[in-house]
Amino acid sequence: MNSTKPLILISNDDGITAPGIQALISVMQEIGDVIVVAPDKPQSAMGHAITINQTIRLTETHLYPGVKAYQCSGTPVDCVKIAIDKILPRKADLMVSGINHGANSSINVIYSGTMSAAVEASIDGMPAIGFSLCDYSWEADFESAKPFIKQIALETLKRGLPYGTLLNVNIPVPQDKKIKGIKVCRQAQAKWKEDFDERLDPFNRKYYWMTGQFVNMDKGEDTDVWALDNDYISVVPTMFDLTDHQRIGMINQWNLNVKQKD
Amino acid sequence: MNSTKPLILISNDDGITAPGIQALISVMQEIGDVIVVAPDKPQSAMGHAITINQTIRLTETHLYPGVKAYQCSGTPVDCVKIAIDKILPRKADLMVSGINHGANSSINVIYSGTMSAAVEASIDGMPAIGFSLCDYSWEADFESAKPFIKQIALETLKRGLPYGTLLNVNIPVPQDKKIKGIKVCRQAQAKWKEDFDERLDPFNRKYYWMTGQFVNMDKGEDTDVWALDNDYISVVPTMFDLTDHQRIGMINQWNLNVKQKD
Repeated sequence: MNSTKPLILISNDDGITAPGIQALISVMQEIGDVIVVAPDKPQSAMGHAITINQTIRLTETHLYPGVKAYQCSGTPVDCVKIAIDKILPRKADLMVSGINHGANSSINVIYSGTMSAAVEASIDGMPAIGFSLCDYSWEADFESAKPFIKQIALETLKRGLPYGTLLNVNIPVPQDKKIKGIKVCRQAQAKWKEDFDERLDPFNRKYYWMTGQFVNMDKGEDTDVWALDNDYISVVPTMFDLTDHQRIGMINQWNLNVKQKD
Repeated sequence: MNSTKPLILISNDDGITAPGIQALISVMQEIGDVIVVAPDKPQSAMGHAITINQTIRLTETHLYPGVKAYQCSGTPVDCVKIAIDKILPRKADLMVSGINHGANSSINVIYSGTMSAAVEASIDGMPAIGFSLCDYSWEADFESAKPFIKQIALETLKRGLPYGTLLNVNIPVPQDKKIKGIKVCRQAQAKWKEDFDERLDPFNRKYYWMTGQFVNMDKGEDTDVWALDNDYISVVPTMFDLTDHQRIGMINQWNLNVKQKD
């Protein structure tokens, strides 16, 4: 790790054995020195959860030749935090998360462990990118995505990102296998309509499985959902300051104060 | 539930038995018809995690007289989702989350289960507020906060909130017990500096506890951290569109495309 190559931290939420992280590692090895700290089991939809009331395990693995890799019992965000404190010899020049098996476009960014790992790295000041492929299958084909991932990573290393901004990159799987190019987008306004599947256990007690339908309320052609539907890769500049700055003035007009007893 | 009173959904992340949710229920009962769906155990720092690979249980409880209340085995976001699908007779007029035992100001908004429950309700189109008290103790005194919470809830019911915006309300515990008033703020730019406590288990294997220091990089007097340090309640208009709209133009200047083989 005394090379002059960029230092790249990799994590994900599908776990350290996922084909997606394997593909990402292979691309990043062409660019720099790679350190992997990833969950030891699938941690999809963990959002920005962290482990504060339980212990965490961290174990070096030799899954990927030539790569320093650790599996961690915690969430994707835990992986990034423990990498920063215990593994990285210095701040990484780039953090990449994924490649997620399944889209993290639109509102999915908020549920995604893949994106939360990238957000956490970004909070710490690393340029960070979350990559997702719009194919949930463990057998998904990551090959056509690789040249784009490499180019986006190289450009991010070259340009840097302002503190507070990271990239959410989603990659479509076109029918004819030909990606049309890249669109820089905003996150489409959409939500999941819940539909909990109610069942009875062998003891006649109810339990539920969460299912749902993705509802896109946003027909804008400047959105990530539009880009993906039209065979473009979507790149959404994403931020972790959740302040709705434009509404501060409005809420200031409200009558919120209470006359207190002396 | 056939009354003309507002319908109010309550959740939290400290669990359905927490004194904080008890205090919030008592205030909301003065305003409307209350339905509670809250975790059956503490779920702090769960962020926006949802339960997709495990089953969920939902059980009616009679902890709070006159209140329809359910405990759920899932995360705070799960609670809101299952309330929407299985419990609420119609969209609630207001969703309130908390009162959290401990601050959710600044970057903590992103780790907070309390705030994520409110975010989820907001995604579904309910006016939503997360309330937190800057006191981690289970013995915290919620009394002085109650009149403010009532006023903020009433004003939110009266004014409504635009889709995409919710409120993050943090309440200080001043030394002299006197809250100075309310400040509408932005989220202070801060982060946690990780410091994992490394220990050996009885079998001589390492394990870790996550600890850390809150580092405030932001001295602005328009921030939530400043307000709380100066004995004001902070109200931060918060949003779940994570797009960094201002950077779309910048990233569009980058050289992201790849020449593909035909």
